[in-house]
This record gives sequence, structure tokens and C-alpha cells, in this order.
Amino acid sequence: MFFSIKRILIGRPLKTTELGEQKLNKTKALAVLSSDALSSVAYGPEQILIVLATLGAVAFWYTIPIAVGVLILLTALILSYRQIIFAYPYGGGAYVVSKTNLGTNPGLIAGGSLLVDYILTVAVSVSAGTDAITSAFPALHDFKVEIAIVFVIFLTILNLRGVTESASVLAYPVYLFVLALFILIGVGIYNILTGGVSPEFHSPIGTPVTGISLFLLLRAFASGSSALTGVEAISNAIPNFKDPAPKNAAKTLVMMGILLAILFSGIVLLAYFYGISPMAEVTVVSQIAEATFGRNFMYFFIQGTTALILILAANTGYSAFPLLAVNLAKDKFIPRAFLVRGDRLGYSNGIIILGIASIILIFAFQAETEHLIPLYAVGVFVPFTLSQTGMMVKWFREKPEGWMPKLFINTIGAVISFTVTIMFFLTKFAQVWSILAFVPIIVFAFHRIRKHYEDVGDQLRLTACEPPLTIEGNVMIVPVAGMTTVVENSLNYAKGLSPDQIIAVYVSFEREDEKKFEEKWKKWQPDIRLVTLHSHYRSIINPLTKFIDTVEHKASESNYQVTVVIPQFIPKKGWHNILHNQSGTMIRTLLLFRRNVVITTVPYHLKK
Amino acid sequence: MFFSIKRILIGRPLKTTELGEQKLNKTKALAVLSSDALSSVAYGPEQILIVLATLGAVAFWYTIPIAVGVLILLTALILSYRQIIFAYPYGGGAYVVSKTNLGTNPGLIAGGSLLVDYILTVAVSVSAGTDAITSAFPALHDFKVEIAIVFVIFLTILNLRGVTESASVLAYPVYLFVLALFILIGVGIYNILTGGVSPEFHSPIGTPVTGISLFLLLRAFASGSSALTGVEAISNAIPNFKDPAPKNAAKTLVMMGILLAILFSGIVLLAYFYGISPMAEVTVVSQIAEATFGRNFMYFFIQGTTALILILAANTGYSAFPLLAVNLAKDKFIPRAFLVRGDRLGYSNGIIILGIASIILIFAFQAETEHLIPLYAVGVFVPFTLSQTGMMVKWFREKPEGWMPKLFINTIGAVISFTVTIMFFLTKFAQVWSILAFVPIIVFAFHRIRKHYEDVGDQLRLTACEPPLTIEGNVMIVPVAGMTTVVENSLNYAKGLSPDQIIAVYVSFEREDEKKFEEKWKKWQPDIRLVTLHSHYRSIINPLTKFIDTVEHKASESNYQVTVVIPQFIPKKGWHNILHNQSGTMIRTLLLFRRNVVITTVPYHLKK
Repeated sequence: MFFSIKRILIGRPLKTTELGEQKLNKTKALAVLSSDALSSVAYGPEQILIVLATLGAVAFWYTIPIAVGVLILLTALILSYRQIIFAYPYGGGAYVVSKTNLGTNPGLIAGGSLLVDYILTVAVSVSAGTDAITSAFPALHDFKVEIAIVFVIFLTILNLRGVTESASVLAYPVYLFVLALFILIGVGIYNILTGGVSPEFHSPIGTPVTGISLFLLLRAFASGSSALTGVEAISNAIPNFKDPAPKNAAKTLVMMGILLAILFSGIVLLAYFYGISPMAEVTVVSQIAEATFGRNFMYFFIQGTTALILILAANTGYSAFPLLAVNLAKDKFIPRAFLVRGDRLGYSNGIIILGIASIILIFAFQAETEHLIPLYAVGVFVPFTLSQTGMMVKWFREKPEGWMPKLFINTIGAVISFTVTIMFFLTKFAQVWSILAFVPIIVFAFHRIRKHYEDVGDQLRLTACEPPLTIEGNVMIVPVAGMTTVVENSLNYAKGLSPDQIIAVYVSFEREDEKKFEEKWKKWQPDIRLVTLHSHYRSIINPLTKFIDTVEHKASESNYQVTVVIPQFIPKKGWHNILHNQSGTMIRTLLLFRRNVVITTVPYHLKK
Repeated sequence: MFFSIKRILIGRPLKTTELGEQKLNKTKALAVLSSDALSSVAYGPEQILIVLATLGAVAFWYTIPIAVGVLILLTALILSYRQIIFAYPYGGGAYVVSKTNLGTNPGLIAGGSLLVDYILTVAVSVSAGTDAITSAFPALHDFKVEIAIVFVIFLTILNLRGVTESASVLAYPVYLFVLALFILIGVGIYNILTGGVSPEFHSPIGTPVTGISLFLLLRAFASGSSALTGVEAISNAIPNFKDPAPKNAAKTLVMMGILLAILFSGIVLLAYFYGISPMAEVTVVSQIAEATFGRNFMYFFIQGTTALILILAANTGYSAFPLLAVNLAKDKFIPRAFLVRGDRLGYSNGIIILGIASIILIFAFQAETEHLIPLYAVGVFVPFTLSQTGMMVKWFREKPEGWMPKLFINTIGAVISFTVTIMFFLTKFAQVWSILAFVPIIVFAFHRIRKHYEDVGDQLRLTACEPPLTIEGNVMIVPVAGMTTVVENSLNYAKGLSPDQIIAVYVSFEREDEKKFEEKWKKWQPDIRLVTLHSHYRSIINPLTKFIDTVEHKASESNYQVTVVIPQFIPKKGWHNILHNQSGTMIRTLLLFRRNVVITTVPYHLKK
């Protein structure tokens, strides 16, 4: 049942050799990996305007120089990550760069921030997309959490089906969104050039603004930079590309940078020339679209694709999280389970954990995740800063041919990213302080896990110096609940292995019962020693474990191995199990985890 | 940790021999077993008035003849259950009586209805008590469900501590409630007799009422009879009494009947003479108390003890449910787990299941359980009717000395109970129809469970005619994940038992890996055959079970027994387990339930 549902949902299992077919070409990769970055165009410019609006509409011309700053940062990041892709062609992005060049802890800070960040990406973008839908259909408002969770489940299943399949589905809406914004920007700029827009709408560049300060400008810049989240995703996901993977990834990254630059500057320019003010109810993109087209088909097309891309931005998390997790798991900082490829060759544990974690977040915040956005931006700019710094160190150390311009690019990137990070802490401390608490906790957990794996490795390694104890003989203990076919079966099994001694143990609750049982036993199994234990407190486990302890203690002195042989009948149907006391299972679990005895379960399958 | 919390909550375990000290004397038994019946006085008379109120206050004098009818039914039930106690001194009440005299299915209908009914008792009375509390403190209204659940948990823990202890705690509020109502009735009657109450308040008995009908009177009678729920509890709980148990139980039953009769007639009389009309917001008892004392200490004393007894009525369910379950479990109609005595000698599984089931009900109905009351009344009157009919059959069949008056009593009881049942179906079908659906389902489940136990019994019984297969030899299969100390440990164990063959099985995911592994193995364990399985789909379980199937198939032809020896390392701390793939556990579970192979787990305890 479970397996057929699974097969319907995610499709037939794939052979390991089919891995090559699961790789992405550039067009599809651009769609799945850039949806997060491109979707930020829908709110990045607005964030700048919101900060400037505190000084009045006269300050709006500052969006232009700020946008230039964002474009410089974008260029630095794209060029820098392009260098990272070639330097670290197996993916891992900021984590690998920081770890290699700055040391383990900076690497873990970058990796930990990004892991959390991808969970936030999913929660925040799905919530934002759901918001867009419930704004359009207010009747759905009460089901916001449910709708958001359904989207997460949908994306999780889609990704479990494999990278190629999800890319084929998701490519359409992403390119439609890009197309819609291209038309909007094109028509808008045509209107401006042909004088269709009144020049009175905007204050000219350079108009003096009272109350302007460097701090405010930096704050606006930091807010605008939130449009750059998601830029790092491609560097984490290189292994998903068709060969030659690094080359294709680099080309895709540059393509994404160009698209992002065009869309971002287009929206900023239109907002400036149209003189648009941020409003609580209507987004800036929506205002621009309405001013350009009125409320016709194009307007709804733009609104619809925007809502879609907000949800699909979550998919970037699904592409990058599992691959980052693989890198961390390879280094033993997170459970090995993240290394396992699922039926469809994706790292399904990573995908499922990401889905569950974001559902928990959505549920905890009741799909009101707006105030998680600054946290999410900081979670990106910390690894940005660390990876750029790591690259700086790399160039300094290695000094390959033509390293100076490379160092220059990374230095610019590092300085701006660091400034943005600091601005977030200075201006939105109340929303981002928690990163200071949870990153150290995560890094600590990483180290504990690594320590455990290393301890286990040490103990599993065969060493010549310590020969294992030789077993001199075997004692078998058979707990018996009565004289039944099941017990007989187990006794026959034990006899067949001819250990040095077989002891049957019977736990009785009532004194009168004991003698009768012993007499009957003597007739039935005269050659097997029976030990009867009286249980004052009606527990089978306690007297039994005490007895086993005693036997084990004696046996270990003479290097004898104790085996507990548990007779267990297996009912024909699963639901029958609730009708039987699970003493066998309980004995097995308790003994296995606490004592040095071997547990043998002899099943007796019931036929009806 | 778990065990020390358990010990704090329910106390030290008791020896089986201490059972005698857990028996109840009459005073305590009366308190715990009659709380349900006595608490119904708080709403029974009101139910009659509500029906009569449809014809106006002039009809209220009919409460007197209706109350007489209820008293006759009460007398018949008390006398009849007294006879049941002596006839069936081991408890089981309606279930045992109906089963013995009418047949299995009537017995199961009675037993099933009562089981469900006790769950309803707990849910309904705790909700009603919580209502009384939140009416007094409206600030608590939003936490109704939580408060009700806390009460259920409290009662569950109290009952897990043992019958004696819960009786000692609960006796005070029950007797305080009786005392409070005695004072109320005494002072009220004194006022009436001394002319302190105006005779104009009530219409004289015999005043003609327009629109009166037999149907309406019967409906009022049926509603009033809901005060009689809980009368059967003592007959289920005889084993909880001190010796001589049946005698003590019978005396307690009569005592309860007398108390119930006095309180019920007292409240009805006062309500009639005071001319009280049912009101939505204020209960009849509250109106009487206010009319008698005004809003002074006595008023609040009566209100407070009433709220308490409503909650404690739930305890009757806790006393009767586990003992009824024991009777059903002895006959194998419900899981054997209900027969197990817990640490404190109570039937703790019954207590816990009752608690969980009522919490689910409270949660599902959000503590608004008023419309469950008719269902709950029907659930009592069905077993009432069945047990009275059963007793009639018994007297007819056995005809012991002086059987005629006994038959007469039971016939009266049966006829009235049957009438009440029918009235509930006729007048409140919308609320009680579900009993027609779930009782057959429950009875069906009872039969299925019984059938399963009988099948198992047949298969476990040793028969001389069918000698078990003798084992001719042993094959041991050791799944190995690598060459480690853990695997070495398991191989040494297997060698020590010297089976006919040991096969190590290695599942590989990558072809290149295989040869290297095989070569290394030959050097390490030259005398153990290694089989390498290639897994196309990266599953360890599938190729392994297929291989084991093949071996098992061959082995069974020549009566060889296959044992799968699973090397398992046991981490030092519980949380470490999430860091390791639980392949061992999965292999064990899958193989045990599906194949005829013995599973041996060889633990290797890690030291750090």
C-alpha cells in the first residue's frame, strides 16, 4: 500500500547508472536556481522606497544612486561566485570556500547560516505567494496556513520526483515572469521616452533633501540588497548541471546576473519616473503595471506570474539545501542520512527534512513570515561576506597568474557584503539578533556530531594490537511463557545449535502455579533445565533481566557468550499485534541496549 | 527518568500479596461508586421540568406523579441489581447477567454499551463540572478544554495510584454534597410546613392542563430517568469491596438507593412548592438554594459541592470501566492487556485507555458535551433492560425457592427500562441514533478479537499428532557493511556456534568497489564465504531479502534452519541513534514479520 502510493507520487525508482539523465541543461537550471533571486525584484526596489519615504517623496531620486550601488554589489557577487564555481567545481559554495580558506569554524558558520536560510527561503516565499493568492481571493484567507502547507508538500513531492522533472514543470512560470516584466519595462520606458509620462511626477536627481544622512542611505541600500538573496544558490548546486558542469554553471550564473540587473534597474527606473510611493495595500510592481497598462489583461498577467514566482522562489531552497547538506554530511558534521540518494536519485532526506522544517516554521508563524525577511537576508549576507573573504585569502596565498583583478573583485564584494550585514544588525537588531544565538548552537551541534562519528570510527577500526575476546562456550537462555508450539520451536532451535547449556526461564505471578508448571515441564522437556522466577510485582522484564545479569556475569568470567533465545509468534495480520502483550519486543529492546547478550528471535508464523 | 516520574505520580509498586489492602469499605465504596448516580440529582428533576414547561407552569404539578414513577423504577432497579449482586458475586453486572441468561450477543450488546457509556460518563461529567467552574470564573472560559483535560489527567493518575487512595480523597466532596443537599431539603421543607412559602407559587395537584398527552408525560418521565444512570456501577465493581464482598456491595447499593430517593424527591418537592421554572442560565438547584437561603454562605456551599460532584461523577467510570473490561477480556472479547494489574494493583491499562478515550471525546467536542447526554442515558438503559430480562429468564429457568417475587421485581424493572429506552429513541432520535451504528460495530469487533484468540490458542496448543519439524542443520547469513570490529564480533559469534555454513553478504552500490572489497575480505576472513550483491537502486534491504529468500528456499528443502546474524553497534547515548542509518533494525523488522528465518542480533557496545 505505502509503496504503491509512493510510486504514484514520485514515480518508479531509478538505477544509479541513470544519474546522468537527471542533470540539468542551462535553460532549466536557470529557471530552478534563479527563481529566488529573480523573485526578489518583486520586493527589493520597494524596500528602498519604504526607507526613503520617511523623508517624503522628494527623497525618491536617491533610489537611482542606491540602485547603482546594488548593481555594483551584484556585479561583484556574480563575478566572485563565478570565480568560486571554477575554484570549487564540486559545489558547496560559501561553506567549502570558507572552510578551505578561513578554517573549519567560519566554514560551519557559513554552512549553518545557509542551511537555516534555505528553510527560511521556503517558508517566506511560500507564505508570500500564498499572501498574493489570498489577497486576490479573500474567501481563502482563513485557509492561509493550509494553502501554504499544501504548496510546500507539492514542492517537496515535485523535488522528490527528481531535478529534471521539477525543472521541466517550473521553467514555464519563471520564463513567463521574466517575459511579463520585460514587456512592462519595455512599454514603460517607451512611454517615458515618448513623453507619455509627466516629468512632474518625479523630483530631479540632485534635489536637496532635508534630513538625509549617510546612515539612512546605507539603511536603504541594505534593504535594497535583499533583492540579491539567492545569488549564491548556483554555486551550491554545481553537481546538478550537465557536463562540463562548472562551465555551464558559470554561464548560467552570468545569465542570471544580467537578467536580475535588467529587471532590477528597470523597476527602479520606472518607479522613479512614475513617481511611485510605497503603499501598504498595493505593491510597487502592481502600481507600475496599473500605471502602464491600466487594469487589463497585461496587468493581471504580471500580477499572476509575480504570485507564481514568489512561490517558486522556494524551489531554489529545494535545489541548494540537499547539496549543501551533502557537503556537510561528507565532512561528518550532520547525519550521514543526508548522503543517501532516494529512489529518484535526489538526496531525498535533505528534501524531506527541508519540507518538514519549513512546514513547522509556517505553522509556528501561521504563514505570517514577513518579519522573518531581515533574518533571512542576514542569513545570506553572512555567508556572502565569509566566502568573499575566503576567496581573498585564497588569492593572497596562492597568487596564481592574474590574481590581482580577482582579489580586487572579491575585496569589493567582501566590503559591501560586510557593510550590508552590519547595516542589518544596526537597523533591524530586534528582528535579527536570534541569528547570534542559533548560529553558535548549530556550530556546536556540528562539532558534537563530528566528534561522535570520529569516536565511532575509532572503535570500529580493526587494529592488530587488540585481538577480540575469543568465545570459549555458549549459554542459551530461553524465556518461556508456557508449554506451547512456539516455545517448542525455540527449544528445538537452541538444541540444534548444541550450546554448552540451555536454561529455560519461567516467570510466575502466583506461587500455586509454580510447582504444577515445574512438574509438567519435567515430563515434557526432561533434558532442559527450568528456572522458575517468582515476580512479586507482576513484571516479567525485571526478574528476567536480573537473572540474565547474573548468568551473564558468571559467563563472562570464563569467556562464555550468553544468548537469549526469544520465542515469538508472528500473527498473520498486523492489527493482531495489539491483541498480544509485546513482551518479546520489550525484552529484546531492553536487553539489546543495556547488556552484553546476543538476542535471537525465533519466529513462529501463525497460519490463521 | 521515566521511572522516577512515574514513581512520584503513582507511588511505589505494590506486591501482589498486598491486594487485600486495596479493597474498599462501605463508606468509601459508597463515595466512589455512587458519585455518578447522586450527581444526577443536580440535573434529573430539571429535565422533567424542561419537558413540562412546554405546556406552561400550570403543568408543573405533574412532576409529582412522574417523580413517583422514577422512584418506582429506582426501587425496581435497586432491588433487581441487589439480586444480580448475589447471583453474580464476581462482578460484571449487566454483561455477565445478559451473557449467561440471554446468550453471547445480548451480553456483548450490554457490555459494549456500558464500555462506551463509561467513556461518555467521564467526558460528560468532567465537561459539566468545568462548565460550572467557568460560569463562576468567566476569565477561564477560553481554557475550558484544557481545564477539562487536566481534570481527566488528574482523575487518571489518582486512579492509577489505587482504589483506596482515590476513595480516600474523593469521599469528602461526595459526603459534603449529600450533607449540603440534606440541609437544603430540610430547611426547605421546614419553610413549607411552617407556611414560609406562599401557596400561590404552585398549581394544586390535579389542575387540568390543556394539551397534556401520555406521550409528553412519558417523555418527561424518560428525561427524569436520566437521574438513574450510574445505578449499575456497584454491580460491576463487586471485586473492589472488602470481604464479604457481595454482602457489602448489596448494603452499599441499598444505601445509595435510599440517598438517591431522598435527594431526588426532596429536590422535586421543593421545586414544586417553590413553583420553580427551568431557566437557561440558572439551574433548578441553584434557584431552590437561592430561594431558601438567599446568596449567603450556604448558597455558595451548595453550588460549590455540586460543581465538585459533577466532576467526581467521572470517577464512577474509573471504578467500573476497568472491571467490566476485565470481564470482557477474560472471555477474550477485548485485548488481554486489560487483564494486567499495574504497579498499584489497579487494572491500569483500563484506567489509561478510559482516560485517553475521554480526552479524545472532550477534545473532539471541545468540552461541549451536553448533546451527548441522551446518548449516554440510552447507553445505560439498554443494559438495564437486558440485565432485567436476563434475570427474568434466570428465575423462570431455575425456579429457586421464593422466585415469584424476584421475577416480579425484575419484570417491573425490565418493562420500565424498556419503556424509557423506547421513549429516548422516539423523542431524541437525532441524538441517539448513533448507538444503532456503533453497538453492532463494537459487537462485531468483539467477535473478531475472540476468533483471533481462539485461532492462536489452537495453533499454540501442543498436539501429539503433529511432531514439529526436526532441524537437520544450520546456515548463518551475516550481512556485513564493511570490515570493522562490529562485523568481526558477529563473525566470531557465528563461528563459535559452528553452524554448517556461514555466508557473509555485502551489498555494494558501486561496481569498482566490489572487487577491492572481495580481495581485502579474502585476506581478512579466508575461511568465510563472501557473497557480494550489487544494488542498482541503492537499497540494502531489497537485494538482501531476495538473497535470503533464495537461501531459505533451498535450506528448507533439506530441513536446514536459516539464521540471519545482524552485527549491530549500540551507541553510548540515545541521541546518537539518529546519526546512524537504522539498517539493522529495518532488516530485523522486515525479515521477522515476513520470512521464516531466525534473527540474531549481536550487539557491540561502544564505549564513547
